[in-house]
Amino acid sequence: MYEVEIKVPAAVGTVRERLVAEGTNAERRDARRQRDVYYDAPHRSFAETDEALRLRHETPLSDGIGSEPTGGTEAVMTYKGPLIDDASKTREEHETGVTDADAAAGVLDGLGFTPAATVSKEREFWALDGVTVTLDVVEEVGEFVEVELAVPDVGDVDEARGRAVATLDRIGLDADDQVRTSYLGLLCSQ
Amino acid sequence: MYEVEIKVPAAVGTVRERLVAEGTNAERRDARRQRDVYYDAPHRSFAETDEALRLRHETPLSDGIGSEPTGGTEAVMTYKGPLIDDASKTREEHETGVTDADAAAGVLDGLGFTPAATVSKEREFWALDGVTVTLDVVEEVGEFVEVELAVPDVGDVDEARGRAVATLDRIGLDADDQVRTSYLGLLCSQ
Repeated sequence: MYEVEIKVPAAVGTVRERLVAEGTNAERRDARRQRDVYYDAPHRSFAETDEALRLRHETPLSDGIGSEPTGGTEAVMTYKGPLIDDASKTREEHETGVTDADAAAGVLDGLGFTPAATVSKEREFWALDGVTVTLDVVEEVGEFVEVELAVPDVGDVDEARGRAVATLDRIGLDADDQVRTSYLGLLCSQ
Repeated sequence: MYEVEIKVPAAVGTVRERLVAEGTNAERRDARRQRDVYYDAPHRSFAETDEALRLRHETPLSDGIGSEPTGGTEAVMTYKGPLIDDASKTREEHETGVTDADAAAGVLDGLGFTPAATVSKEREFWALDGVTVTLDVVEEVGEFVEVELAVPDVGDVDEARGRAVATLDRIGLDADDQVRTSYLGLLCSQ
């Protein structure tokens, strides 16, 4: 799958009001606290190759951003390849849940990967006419809204980007404000 | 945890009869078909460092070795560090289940790890007075019995090895027949 994602700085409270005003067109799916540990590789510089290896620790927030965590923490291991379309931040991605977060960290440590930085955020996921809209409050970085679609073929990326731009417009945001730097990059450039 | 493991070649049918003759002292726990994919690393030679990275695909065999698989396949990612005690094959090990075997393989592929060899076997796990006894039928390699204990501290390894040797003796096997080569090594040396 190819992921098309556009992220802009935005006051999440204002955007949430716009989504609520959409009525049945918009639906809040779920919300999560995420602690993302990014790793450095022993054999190449991910900063140079523009790859990422991440171990994410996720806890549900059933009442949205700012509410108390509910349920247990789950962990997900993700590899993100280099950008294949710079305009839309499109990457090839592989992601699997892991049943033992400490053991997964142990595997990576044994192989020579080392934790480089940690990004902590709270997210609300919404669906607006089939497009995923994510409200993000990122510790030490700020508030952002991401619009995201996944398509199976690289040939569908342009059309998906058009839908993403239109979705941003509908909730009062401008794709020209796009921030291409990852939260990790924003955190580390402070 | 430190794993103490002694493996000897043995006719698994004969050993199973001895375990059954132990009555309530021995209990068959479960049986599984395992397809183990071993990876080469991009940045060091696991053959030289004596490490291993494995993605295991496991399917339950509720009626033991030779029976039809039951239930779905699960996948487990394991890192094994170098030997810390050559006599008992003791290693530090990190192991986690993964919820998407194909994605886990995709993560490893993205990071530059490549499948090197695949070992397929059927295993029956027994417990004999608290010690794990495993009967293994390994495709293209042969039949073996492994006796295994896990202890939390490296200082407990000698005592655990003594229990492993005594357990082998009890089921008619001799620790002097120990095969220290892994199934992967045995497969690749043919």
